[in-house]
Amino acid sequence: MKSVESYQKEFVDYLKQYSAFKEPDTLYEPIRYILELGGKRLRPVLTLMTSEIFDCDYKSALNAALSVEVFHNFSLVHDDIMDDAPLRRGKETVHEKWDVNTGILSGDAMLIMAYKLFENYNDVTFRNLARLFSKTALEVCEGQQYDIDFETRDDVTITEYLKMIEYKTAVLVGAAMQMGAIVADASINDQNLIYEFGKNLGIAFQLQDDYLDAFGDPETFGKQLGGDIIENKKTYLYLKALEYAPENGKQELQDLFSISPIDTEDKIDSVKRIFELSGSSIATQKEIENYTNKAFTVLEAIHISNDKKELLKEFGNSLMTRLV
Amino acid sequence: MKSVESYQKEFVDYLKQYSAFKEPDTLYEPIRYILELGGKRLRPVLTLMTSEIFDCDYKSALNAALSVEVFHNFSLVHDDIMDDAPLRRGKETVHEKWDVNTGILSGDAMLIMAYKLFENYNDVTFRNLARLFSKTALEVCEGQQYDIDFETRDDVTITEYLKMIEYKTAVLVGAAMQMGAIVADASINDQNLIYEFGKNLGIAFQLQDDYLDAFGDPETFGKQLGGDIIENKKTYLYLKALEYAPENGKQELQDLFSISPIDTEDKIDSVKRIFELSGSSIATQKEIENYTNKAFTVLEAIHISNDKKELLKEFGNSLMTRLV
Repeated sequence: MKSVESYQKEFVDYLKQYSAFKEPDTLYEPIRYILELGGKRLRPVLTLMTSEIFDCDYKSALNAALSVEVFHNFSLVHDDIMDDAPLRRGKETVHEKWDVNTGILSGDAMLIMAYKLFENYNDVTFRNLARLFSKTALEVCEGQQYDIDFETRDDVTITEYLKMIEYKTAVLVGAAMQMGAIVADASINDQNLIYEFGKNLGIAFQLQDDYLDAFGDPETFGKQLGGDIIENKKTYLYLKALEYAPENGKQELQDLFSISPIDTEDKIDSVKRIFELSGSSIATQKEIENYTNKAFTVLEAIHISNDKKELLKEFGNSLMTRLV
Repeated sequence: MKSVESYQKEFVDYLKQYSAFKEPDTLYEPIRYILELGGKRLRPVLTLMTSEIFDCDYKSALNAALSVEVFHNFSLVHDDIMDDAPLRRGKETVHEKWDVNTGILSGDAMLIMAYKLFENYNDVTFRNLARLFSKTALEVCEGQQYDIDFETRDDVTITEYLKMIEYKTAVLVGAAMQMGAIVADASINDQNLIYEFGKNLGIAFQLQDDYLDAFGDPETFGKQLGGDIIENKKTYLYLKALEYAPENGKQELQDLFSISPIDTEDKIDSVKRIFELSGSSIATQKEIENYTNKAFTVLEAIHISNDKKELLKEFGNSLMTRLV
């Protein structure tokens, strides 16, 4: 087994020779741009790592890993249009650097290119990869739609919120790992377990994202702290605070989430105070732990050596103790 | 073999039970809307018809036919956003009835749903369908990009234009027919020939579209006559007129294509006169005949009975002698 860093390096090398020049350049240049914008390459690394966990040379999993990354970037390009986001990883988004039509069409091409990468596998593997991919991709679309719908609803439940982040974020983490297992020809049972491991870790990861957005270390947190609060985003912290806060706290929180002041500092402080006083902050940490433990319990049942289980646990813990 | 009308009916029945209610409704309602908006269902009918030409029950081809239609409608939804089109088949476009974000996301889901439909076939057929589909879908994106690029270029050649309509329109007609042949387990050779037949017919069909837009019968032509001229669209008629017209005619045509008068009648008449006087109008008719004959020549080599060849020829001719 290699280190995360060396999987990253191998993956990025492979990515570079993939996104070579194709005609028309107006379609493929934005695709090269977003694919080479960087990022942690978390999902494809998980695919490579999982293939080796199930005793397969990670090189066989490079095309599946690439498919996951191309799909992930497709969803970023289209989501950035929908969210009207000017920046992605500190650089201009595709629709900002070119235009919305370019973002739509280049995104569409990427979704197709993600499927095309499965053609490098035999019939059975191709089918299994494509089927998992389609199921996952459709769930990601559904998750994005739920996220959009929640913006204009004031009766979102915790259960609905958890389903939304599961679909929008976590299933792709699970699928990235299962794809590694599919390429490695792991048993169906192990495939399903590693998917569940990844999915639960993915949910924990997203809840952690919600938590750090409010309570992260300003020194190390990559994005603007309090961004979700500024945008009145109904995160787990918010929904749980509504559930736990006394009537006046609940009212204050709803009032705070109905305004968009230019000076955001006071608002962020007030909201964070309610998150803490109501017990929502601690409940969120507990839920993160809960999903992390779920992932680790699933891990126990997988037919791999204890060394490998330890390795996956370490990786999970490193994700969960991150400050960024 | 059934009649075109009965294939249409069987297809629409199948489509209706497919687009049943799914959650979230905000994602799937626009999909049902566009799929049930009607249209001639030309492509899926070709898939069904081709499967029976190669001695297979058309029922086995229904999912492949549906995939072609779902993909075609995906491309309409996204193209309508890019073209800022308010109407599709006389009804509001998806982004007009809902909004641009809904159009993007529902379109994305449709592209994935098109792939999912191949899961109804065995491993080998699944792979062959998905591979042809990916190749074709990517070409359709490239064709759309060329079309966008051509709007701002004044040096588009006839060869480039023909490649653009081949990619944007014709390859999907070819693929629709080849998918029927794949489901029917036709030989690779016959598969390739029926693809070429459909592709050449598709190019002829699109050139016919260009021609009828200027010279169609106002009584029977579905869209506004002269629409391409009003929009200064560089069609085959326009490019051929630039090639054939004397210097002053060429200049007049370019001048006419640089204005957008409110009263369009004079402009349309002047442009049509140049199309006729330059010989572009006749050259376009010759090119339509040329591609139709190419299709019919390819047809001869396919291993099917003469009766079936006649049937495909009749269908081809009915497309080419249409007035709408």
